[in-house]
Amino acid sequence: MTTEQQSNAVLKIGIIGSGKGSNALSIFEAIDRGALKAEVTIVLSDVEGAGILNHAIQRDIPARFISAAPFMTKLDGEAQQDYIDVLREHDVDVIALAGFMRIVKPDLLAAFPNRVLNIHPALLPAFPGMYSWKQALDYGAKIAGCTVHFVDTGTDTGPIIIQRSVPIKEDDDAGTLHARIQIQEHAIYPEALQLIADNRLRIEGRRVFIASPS
Amino acid sequence: MTTEQQSNAVLKIGIIGSGKGSNALSIFEAIDRGALKAEVTIVLSDVEGAGILNHAIQRDIPARFISAAPFMTKLDGEAQQDYIDVLREHDVDVIALAGFMRIVKPDLLAAFPNRVLNIHPALLPAFPGMYSWKQALDYGAKIAGCTVHFVDTGTDTGPIIIQRSVPIKEDDDAGTLHARIQIQEHAIYPEALQLIADNRLRIEGRRVFIASPS
Repeated sequence: MTTEQQSNAVLKIGIIGSGKGSNALSIFEAIDRGALKAEVTIVLSDVEGAGILNHAIQRDIPARFISAAPFMTKLDGEAQQDYIDVLREHDVDVIALAGFMRIVKPDLLAAFPNRVLNIHPALLPAFPGMYSWKQALDYGAKIAGCTVHFVDTGTDTGPIIIQRSVPIKEDDDAGTLHARIQIQEHAIYPEALQLIADNRLRIEGRRVFIASPS
Repeated sequence: MTTEQQSNAVLKIGIIGSGKGSNALSIFEAIDRGALKAEVTIVLSDVEGAGILNHAIQRDIPARFISAAPFMTKLDGEAQQDYIDVLREHDVDVIALAGFMRIVKPDLLAAFPNRVLNIHPALLPAFPGMYSWKQALDYGAKIAGCTVHFVDTGTDTGPIIIQRSVPIKEDDDAGTLHARIQIQEHAIYPEALQLIADNRLRIEGRRVFIASPS
């Protein structure tokens, strides 16, 4: 991509998720209000009838269920190739995983090098894996948060783009803490995607440097 | 201790450290300005001539080097008993580890149950162990912080009393980040000790609940 093309083209985002799609919705809404200058060209889900697909359909954004069977916890094999093919058909520049409950494998990462993002409801490297907010509560942490990061072949281990902290309060349960974290998730995921759109990120080893706005 | 005694007695703190003593100094200064209603009755160090001892001596606070030999990385055996004996001689209610570069063993913890505190320069459980600020920087974290916690037999694993986050900036090196973390350390360690003085902490499993001020 030449600089000329970069400055004129709108970033095309493909979103993949398994659930209700609250992070996808935050991306749609950031685009609607002009905070994120990008276009979501396709939304994919491994769960038939998932809420995330409905959010897209309501906005006339292409949305498709693609089975990831026979695998239960990863996106691999022919299913992964199906995802790659559809993402390419929709000219996707960057993939935003949004509540996608599977580990992606190297083929997808190789097809979109340094262009697969994820959001995780913890201040990584603390509390990787499932139900991070509950992990944080059970551990007795006093500060929780969320992280947008590039995806690598590990579980929640890739280079970090943005983190945001939230307090854990005395009377929190898993629900109240998760809700507080999600508010910040919905703020930082569009922010991180806008940094990609503006070509402001530079990865050096594990560190992601953010250039000043041009 | 009866309620009557608790409400009248001033909390007696013993501080143990190996280094310059910047956290000990923050405790002394919090006492001086009335933010921490407590008294430091003894400062101990395993390093002869350590800065932390000098800070105490300048304030006419009893200070003593006690060798922890032959061990290099732990406080154990006869040396640990020496520490316990001296802490008891000085009527210590609570022990504040402040840059003490050794693992304490169960005898000390049993002698002062739920009364040994430590401060760690990271948002635990992220980055336990040495040079946490450098670990955070090398990992590419965007948020660092510090933690005051009760000490248990693990390394930086005990129940958490207070945490404070600090941003990691684009141009940080280990020195600038460490300095930013230390400012917050010096705020939260006296705060945590005042919570102990006010008898406001309740430990349930791994969680530490803070009662409202009475």
